[in-house]
Amino acid sequence: MGKTLIFGHKNPDTDTICSALAYADLKNKLGIPAEPARLGSVNKETQFALDYFKTEAPQRIETVDNDVSEVILVDHNEFQQSVDNIKDVRIAEVVDHHRISNFETSEPLYFRAEPVGCTATILNKMYKENKIEVTKDIAGLLVSAIISDSLLLKSPTCTKEDVDAAYELAEIAGINLEAYGLEMLQAGADLSDKSVAELLTMDAKEFSMEDAKVEIAQVNAVDTAKIYALQDEINPEIEKIINEKNLDLFLFVVTDILNNDSEVLALGNGKAKVEEAFHVRLDNNNRALLKGVVSRKKQIVTALTDAFTK
Amino acid sequence: MGKTLIFGHKNPDTDTICSALAYADLKNKLGIPAEPARLGSVNKETQFALDYFKTEAPQRIETVDNDVSEVILVDHNEFQQSVDNIKDVRIAEVVDHHRISNFETSEPLYFRAEPVGCTATILNKMYKENKIEVTKDIAGLLVSAIISDSLLLKSPTCTKEDVDAAYELAEIAGINLEAYGLEMLQAGADLSDKSVAELLTMDAKEFSMEDAKVEIAQVNAVDTAKIYALQDEINPEIEKIINEKNLDLFLFVVTDILNNDSEVLALGNGKAKVEEAFHVRLDNNNRALLKGVVSRKKQIVTALTDAFTK
Ligand SMILES: [Mn+2]
Ligand SMILES: [Mn+2]
Repeated sequence: MGKTLIFGHKNPDTDTICSALAYADLKNKLGIPAEPARLGSVNKETQFALDYFKTEAPQRIETVDNDVSEVILVDHNEFQQSVDNIKDVRIAEVVDHHRISNFETSEPLYFRAEPVGCTATILNKMYKENKIEVTKDIAGLLVSAIISDSLLLKSPTCTKEDVDAAYELAEIAGINLEAYGLEMLQAGADLSDKSVAELLTMDAKEFSMEDAKVEIAQVNAVDTAKIYALQDEINPEIEKIINEKNLDLFLFVVTDILNNDSEVLALGNGKAKVEEAFHVRLDNNNRALLKGVVSRKKQIVTALTDAFTK
Repeated sequence: MGKTLIFGHKNPDTDTICSALAYADLKNKLGIPAEPARLGSVNKETQFALDYFKTEAPQRIETVDNDVSEVILVDHNEFQQSVDNIKDVRIAEVVDHHRISNFETSEPLYFRAEPVGCTATILNKMYKENKIEVTKDIAGLLVSAIISDSLLLKSPTCTKEDVDAAYELAEIAGINLEAYGLEMLQAGADLSDKSVAELLTMDAKEFSMEDAKVEIAQVNAVDTAKIYALQDEINPEIEKIINEKNLDLFLFVVTDILNNDSEVLALGNGKAKVEEAFHVRLDNNNRALLKGVVSRKKQIVTALTDAFTK
C-alpha cells in the first residue's frame, strides 16, 4: 500500500493550499496516513496566511509518483486543473465546491461537493462530523481560505454557512476577521514584483465550454489602472498563450478588492462571447468593466458557459 | 419557482425507486416541496416491496416538463442513464453510489457520492444528519433497496455501513431480514412472464468505455439454464439492439441469486474484451460462467472499462 496524497488545483490559491493541509491533518488525526501536496508555487496571499499561522507549505509535486497508491482532490475536480497524470491514478475522494465537469472514474468513490463558497467550509464541517477539534493554526488556515475565496465575505459565492464558519474559525484562530482579512488580501494584491507573464498565469484556469477551450486568469488588485498601464506588454503575452494552447478565448480578470468590481481584457476568436455573456461592449482595448463581478466561478464561468452553449 | 422532481435511473431498480420515494419524504419533512418520479416501469421485486410497505409507486415521467425548476438525481449520475432531456434542466443535487462519468453542470451543486453498496444507505444517514425519524414504511423501502443492491448482503459492493443500516432498518420496519429478503429477491427472479425483449431491457444500462459504447443487461434468476434455453431467440434480439444503438458490446448477465455466480452472454465486435477482462473463454454459444461475479458495478463495469482502456 503506497502513500495517499491530498492536493488542490494547479496555480494554487489559498483555499487549495489550506484545504490540502487541513484535510491531511484531519486524516492523520483519524489515524489515516496522508500527505498534503501542491501543484505550483505559493502565492503571496497564501504565504501571508502560512507565515501567520506558522505552517510549512505542502510539498510541491509535478506528477504523481509510482509510490502513491491513491489521491484525494480538494477544491477542484476538472482534470485539466489537476495533476498532469491524473488519469493514471486512483482517485479515492474529492472534496470540492465547484461545478462538476471533465471528471470521471471507473470506480465508485467518496465525492463531496457542496454549493458553498469555499472548500474550507466543508472541511470545517468534516472536523465536526468526525468529532475532531480544530486547532488554532488549522482554524487560521481554514478562515484564511474562506476570506480568500469570498473576498472577505463579499463575493456572491459566499453563503451563510461560509459566514458562520468564518466567524467561528476566526475566534478559534484568535484573529479579528476584518483586520486580518484585509491585511491578507492586500498581501496578495501586491503585484509590484510580478512580470506580465506571471500576472497571466498566477491564477489561471482552463475550462471546456461546449466545444470551446477557454482560459480565465484572475488577479486581485488595489489599483486596476496600474495593471492595465502594462497592456502593451500584456496583449502579445496573451496571444502567445492562445496560440500555444489553441484557446478560443483568454479572459484576463483584474478584480478590484476595494470596490468589488472587475475590469476584464478579452482576446481570442471567441471574445464576442464575453459581450454576450455580460451585456457589455469591449472597448478599443478589448476591455470592459464588469460592475459587481468578482467571482470567476459563480459569475464568469457560468455566464460564459451559457453564452458558448447557445 | 417550479417543482422539484427526484428520480433515479432508467430501467428503475428497487434502490432507484425507493431512494426517490425516501428522499422526497425527507425533503418534505424538512419543509422543502419535492416529488418523487420514475423513468420506467416498476419491476416485480420493487412492486413486492411497495406492496409490503403500502406505498404507491412514484409518478412515471418520460421527460422533465417545463413546470419543473430543478431535479435531484438519486442512484445515478451518468446522463445516458437519466431522463432524455437532462441537459436542459437544472440539477440541484445528486445522491449516488456509482462511479462518476458523463456528468457535468455549469454551476456548483450538492453532489454526494459515497462508495457504499446502496443509495438507501446514504439516505439513512441523511435522515440522521437532519434529525428526522425514519418511519416504519420508509425503513421498509430503504432496507428493501439495500437487500436488492447487495443481493441480501452478499455482493462485494456491500460495505459494513450497508450491513449496519440493513439490520437497523429491518428492525424499524419490523421484518426478519433474511426471510423478507429472500422472498423479495425471489419475487424479482420470477421471469416466467417475461418476453425475451423484456429480459434484455428490464435492467439494462449503457456505459461509455474509452471510445466504446457498451450495454450491460442483468437479470436475477433462480435457474440460469431456464433462461439460456431461449438463446436462439435471445441472440437475434441482442443483434437488433446492437445495430439500433450502434453498440460495440452487449453483455447479458444472468445472475444466480442462490449460488452468487453469473453466466454471461457477450455479442458485438468488442466481445473479446470480455475474455480479457475476466480471464475466461467464451464458449461456442458466446457464453461464460463468471464465478463469484454478481455486481455489475463493482465487478463487471470496472473490469470491462480497464480492458477497453488498455
Ligand atoms: Mn475554493
Ligand atoms: Mn443503487
